[in-house]
Amino acid sequence: MLDMFFNPQSVAVIGASREPEKLGYGVLHNIVQYGYQGAIYPINPKADEILGLPAYPSILDTPGDVELAVIVVPGKFVPGVLRECGQKGVRGVVIISAGFRETGTAGLKAEHELMSIAREYDMRIIGPNCLGIIDTVCSLNASFAAGMPVPGEIAFMSQSGALCTAILDWAVATSMGFSRFVSFGNKADVSEVDLLQAWGEDDHTKVIIAYLEAITDGELFLKTARRVTHQKPIIAIKSGTTSAGSKAVSSHTGSLAGSEQAYETAFRQCGVIRANSVQELFDLSVAFVNQPPLQGNRVVIVTNAGGPGIMATDALEVAGLQLASLARETVDTLREYLPPAANFYNPVDVLGDSLADRYGQALDTVLQDANVDGAVVILTPQAMTQIVETARVIGQIAPRCGKPVVSCFMGQERVSEAYPTLREAHIPNYGFPEHAINALGALYQYQEWLSRPEPEILRFKVDPERAHRAIETARDDHRLTLGEMEAREVIAAYGIPVPNSRLAESSDQAVQLANEIGYPVVMKIISPDILHKSDVGGVKVGMINAAEVRDAFDLIMYRARRFMPDADIWGISVQQMVPQGKELIIGVNRDPQFGPLIMFGMGGIYVEVLKDVTFRLAPLSRLDADEMIREIRTYRLLRGVRGEPPVDFKSIIEVLLRVSQLVTDFPEIVELDINPLMALEDRAMAVDMRMVVEARKEYRCQYCGEIFDVDPIRRGKLIYCSAACAFEATRLEACDNLAGGIRP
Amino acid sequence: MLDMFFNPQSVAVIGASREPEKLGYGVLHNIVQYGYQGAIYPINPKADEILGLPAYPSILDTPGDVELAVIVVPGKFVPGVLRECGQKGVRGVVIISAGFRETGTAGLKAEHELMSIAREYDMRIIGPNCLGIIDTVCSLNASFAAGMPVPGEIAFMSQSGALCTAILDWAVATSMGFSRFVSFGNKADVSEVDLLQAWGEDDHTKVIIAYLEAITDGELFLKTARRVTHQKPIIAIKSGTTSAGSKAVSSHTGSLAGSEQAYETAFRQCGVIRANSVQELFDLSVAFVNQPPLQGNRVVIVTNAGGPGIMATDALEVAGLQLASLARETVDTLREYLPPAANFYNPVDVLGDSLADRYGQALDTVLQDANVDGAVVILTPQAMTQIVETARVIGQIAPRCGKPVVSCFMGQERVSEAYPTLREAHIPNYGFPEHAINALGALYQYQEWLSRPEPEILRFKVDPERAHRAIETARDDHRLTLGEMEAREVIAAYGIPVPNSRLAESSDQAVQLANEIGYPVVMKIISPDILHKSDVGGVKVGMINAAEVRDAFDLIMYRARRFMPDADIWGISVQQMVPQGKELIIGVNRDPQFGPLIMFGMGGIYVEVLKDVTFRLAPLSRLDADEMIREIRTYRLLRGVRGEPPVDFKSIIEVLLRVSQLVTDFPEIVELDINPLMALEDRAMAVDMRMVVEARKEYRCQYCGEIFDVDPIRRGKLIYCSAACAFEATRLEACDNLAGGIRP
Repeated sequence: MLDMFFNPQSVAVIGASREPEKLGYGVLHNIVQYGYQGAIYPINPKADEILGLPAYPSILDTPGDVELAVIVVPGKFVPGVLRECGQKGVRGVVIISAGFRETGTAGLKAEHELMSIAREYDMRIIGPNCLGIIDTVCSLNASFAAGMPVPGEIAFMSQSGALCTAILDWAVATSMGFSRFVSFGNKADVSEVDLLQAWGEDDHTKVIIAYLEAITDGELFLKTARRVTHQKPIIAIKSGTTSAGSKAVSSHTGSLAGSEQAYETAFRQCGVIRANSVQELFDLSVAFVNQPPLQGNRVVIVTNAGGPGIMATDALEVAGLQLASLARETVDTLREYLPPAANFYNPVDVLGDSLADRYGQALDTVLQDANVDGAVVILTPQAMTQIVETARVIGQIAPRCGKPVVSCFMGQERVSEAYPTLREAHIPNYGFPEHAINALGALYQYQEWLSRPEPEILRFKVDPERAHRAIETARDDHRLTLGEMEAREVIAAYGIPVPNSRLAESSDQAVQLANEIGYPVVMKIISPDILHKSDVGGVKVGMINAAEVRDAFDLIMYRARRFMPDADIWGISVQQMVPQGKELIIGVNRDPQFGPLIMFGMGGIYVEVLKDVTFRLAPLSRLDADEMIREIRTYRLLRGVRGEPPVDFKSIIEVLLRVSQLVTDFPEIVELDINPLMALEDRAMAVDMRMVVEARKEYRCQYCGEIFDVDPIRRGKLIYCSAACAFEATRLEACDNLAGGIRP
Repeated sequence: MLDMFFNPQSVAVIGASREPEKLGYGVLHNIVQYGYQGAIYPINPKADEILGLPAYPSILDTPGDVELAVIVVPGKFVPGVLRECGQKGVRGVVIISAGFRETGTAGLKAEHELMSIAREYDMRIIGPNCLGIIDTVCSLNASFAAGMPVPGEIAFMSQSGALCTAILDWAVATSMGFSRFVSFGNKADVSEVDLLQAWGEDDHTKVIIAYLEAITDGELFLKTARRVTHQKPIIAIKSGTTSAGSKAVSSHTGSLAGSEQAYETAFRQCGVIRANSVQELFDLSVAFVNQPPLQGNRVVIVTNAGGPGIMATDALEVAGLQLASLARETVDTLREYLPPAANFYNPVDVLGDSLADRYGQALDTVLQDANVDGAVVILTPQAMTQIVETARVIGQIAPRCGKPVVSCFMGQERVSEAYPTLREAHIPNYGFPEHAINALGALYQYQEWLSRPEPEILRFKVDPERAHRAIETARDDHRLTLGEMEAREVIAAYGIPVPNSRLAESSDQAVQLANEIGYPVVMKIISPDILHKSDVGGVKVGMINAAEVRDAFDLIMYRARRFMPDADIWGISVQQMVPQGKELIIGVNRDPQFGPLIMFGMGGIYVEVLKDVTFRLAPLSRLDADEMIREIRTYRLLRGVRGEPPVDFKSIIEVLLRVSQLVTDFPEIVELDINPLMALEDRAMAVDMRMVVEARKEYRCQYCGEIFDVDPIRRGKLIYCSAACAFEATRLEACDNLAGGIRP
């Protein structure tokens, strides 16, 4: 996939220049200098030859086929040369030129024009507004970056071209190897998802790393990433996370930053490892690319210094790892080799005067221990320390055991002599113990992800037709916040237990219903015009006999009429009173990028004051629901404290799964709160709920002009009622002159 | 202070060697090589000359006075040469030799011997078991470390000698400057507190940094650090923080690691800035040493790349900083200088093609804005970026404004060219935006510390005599957990409101007392033998009249007699019933290193399940108490939710302060729990409490053998009943042959 970018037979540089300070020179120079083996065609109407290569006035004049074109001309000329690329039969185009979406509405329109040209000729585009691409597999540096990384197995994509320059500068200095290196700019066409797909199948890439600011299609990203993470690790920085950061994203790229919570949840649910900084991105990727998996979380530390050993130990807990307990035989063997003052337990202290051989004996011994899953070797440059020799010994021993080994050679002036040796031996080295441990933590986190069972999405037998009717009734009335009776109807249609509740229009009927339902009962005014029932005295609880029901009916009705004389009153609901249990809350919010985000927590002050809630994106598996319940801080309250019985966890899980099914089936539900969900010893019941649905959308076809309300055919931002109209529009190239779009 | 170490007129190296692989050679070589200007005396009985200097068989043979001696002989010879140092009149001794406390009990005893020799001759000791000391002010490198840092204004102390070697290696490579550099090893004499005191007054030191594993005298550390942090910042790593890490500390140094909570609180209360890693230690210290204070928390970011600008913005919140809102005039001025595609708001994006002058114009403009307290300049090495020239421009502009400016030149290969320029201009440079922002955050944190009002410790008028009597009564009985009546007595003696409560021995008396106290009342069995009153049916609540009191008395008495026929029953307490309010908890635990650690939080499930508590070390100021209440997560509940009235904060603060006074006055109180402290609208009342006191200590004088229980005179681990005995013991040098010590 995307071979036109990663293994092209020939490359044209449109806008190639003879002036070294121009980008068009830089790109061509990089292609030539770093040894690309295919045909290279500089395109420049004013030059005959550039950098020793014959130049052509237009891509149409080149003698051979062109598979990839790199465009470096000013923005306004891009559509023209792009069309020529199409006519020439070019398959992939990297548009470095800026002046599109990032500049505002006019630029966005120009970008749409590029996309319709690309679609017409079936070309793929990377960019516009990017640094270009670098590929060490086919030795192609089609960018204006300074320098070329050494070949390696890390593929990097970045939404920020400038960050690419910094990372490249770092990579060159530290000989960090890359397979592919893509700055995708405005991602008019090729997005993070396309690159994930391509690199997921790429034999030259072992680890995928990414710098992302906003994700274009959240649901597709989730699906793709979930698949790819089962083949190779994906490590990503998502910036714009805090509220202040999000503002910067918007002003920078004009793209909508999804809420931090949704991103955090999404990454977790698709196994993407999140790095919090560029440093961490590097730290983790060198561990993944060089070392085998960490199969368990038991780590051994071998050190020639007590202090750093303690620091490493301190860092274990945060990284989700633990100090391995060495087997008795291991300790006995260490006792034979090491001097008596050494520490034979973990962290193993080989002492400050340790030479390379003592390090080697200790490391070899502990790695053979079945209680050890991985190791960190710490070295401080003391008087007698054999720095390079120790690196060599680690490199010899580590690969034998099949367990990951990382090193932490602390310092710089003297210890840097060992860097090349460590690099050749594929031992990731870190300057500080915390970073080494953090990298091992990520290896373990990835392994845990791989061992998670395939999520199984249960489908309950429900009554979607009944839910649909309730929603549509409200929409017919243009009520987007559903009344209690309607929301209850939707919830009940999905098999979520709700209290028995009926509508009474007279006090006689109320008594009759209460007799049927059983006492005590709760009574509430039902009117589409009265949203805050308590405020008008419209709720009475705990009626225990017919007389009380009759009194309550009259009282509620009197008050409602007095406070809101014009309200359309449907009657008074008579409802089974639910016993007091643990009050939970289940909420759903539709995230613009990732779809329904489900929240779970304890209700009341726990959610209001303590914000003790957890999130998952729908659809939920049983394991997801189970984990949600366990990970709130007040989980222990649900298990029962001070002799209370536990709540019925199975019922809560089922409610979560049914809610998940409901909001997956009905994308028009944009908000849903069940608050409280009363959790009892033997069941869980949705006592109060509120639901907001989206207004029906109406679209106007941008080709035939007809108004319709089914899902439209989309071409970029353009909308058509049918595939036929979309085809015609594209064919006539008339589409962007037509007015319209979504009509609110 | 400690001038014998930091400015000695002459140095002897005892154990100086001619063999280059020996430490005794390394130390002498370092002293000679790095240009120490005083007299240098190698001491070695088997050599006439070492490194061109005449050698002497013993320090007693040296021709001139010796101010400082460095001892590198094997452990067993140390006492002998140390005594000779004393006889020679040496003032300071650095003992590099190992084989003392770190090896176990025999080593500890040997270390005590060193100390008694040192006291006899009034010498100060650094070590034993250390790397030595380095001083760039007098160009003395009296260590066996490889390399010498450049002069600078950072003083570093470390409990780990190995860590010193790593830091030195790093410092040499990056030209980070130090004034003093001390590895204090076992700190038999000179401890972190001595060094803080000395460096607090040291004109050559602007920032003190430390690596600590355990603190010797917590209360003295607090007092000293609180004073020194008002003169210059102290930044410290305290390792052994997590439970796993603490184990490593114990096995490493045999020193007792204080609980993480106590350290965290202690550092906070004395203004010590805590670094979580060596990297952070470096990052923060270069900011403090090179830049002026950050007077507010409003930061401007100037960048040539959007992505890193977002990362920096993201990092602000965590660091306690905020994005400065630029004044309108600033934005207008930027608009004049910068190209239209730039971002004129914060983060200011000067665009990827920015040359040095554009950076300069932007930086100069934003630094003049009164809404800006400090700046980060981010640079990515793009095609046209003038890396060194930009560094130069930043260095010219930054000092003019009196506000801190740090840089983040991202990358390595190309950007490292700018490092020397930035260093000369005193611009701290960071490889990653998060680190730059974190450093500014620390500058701000320190400024906030400086602006805190001097803590004012209120002393209430209380009745310590009454509290003393209650405690001693229990101690007389060998009861260390005080009974409810006694604990209440102690609490009440310190003016903390408790419910009115009286002891009744008959049902008639109980009725009479209840009539006096007022109904309803609570009644509880009172017996030193019954700790869990509820378990024997010994508590009844809510008696509302005389008849109920009479019934309750008989019932409680009957049950107590039946369940515990042998119990010594004192009677039944009749107690005023406290209305339901917010249940709080105040707890005290005596930390072995820092003294009474006071805990505050919401009681019940909030403390049990949510652990929603906060800590301070006694004594508390009013500000401390006020902050404690505000920083628990459930603070909002105390202010009242859903229309409830707020609790009486003044009363809660007063209880906290009175508890602080109590546990400060009575060090024998090792545990105290008031649970619940019932917080009401108009008062707070201690309803239940428990208290544990220390057994009385009995000592045996190690000179005269007498048993006594007043505070002993201590000499190291040795104990005397009087100064006279201590003097005699020292004089006779017989002290360590005497048996004894603390008798439990």
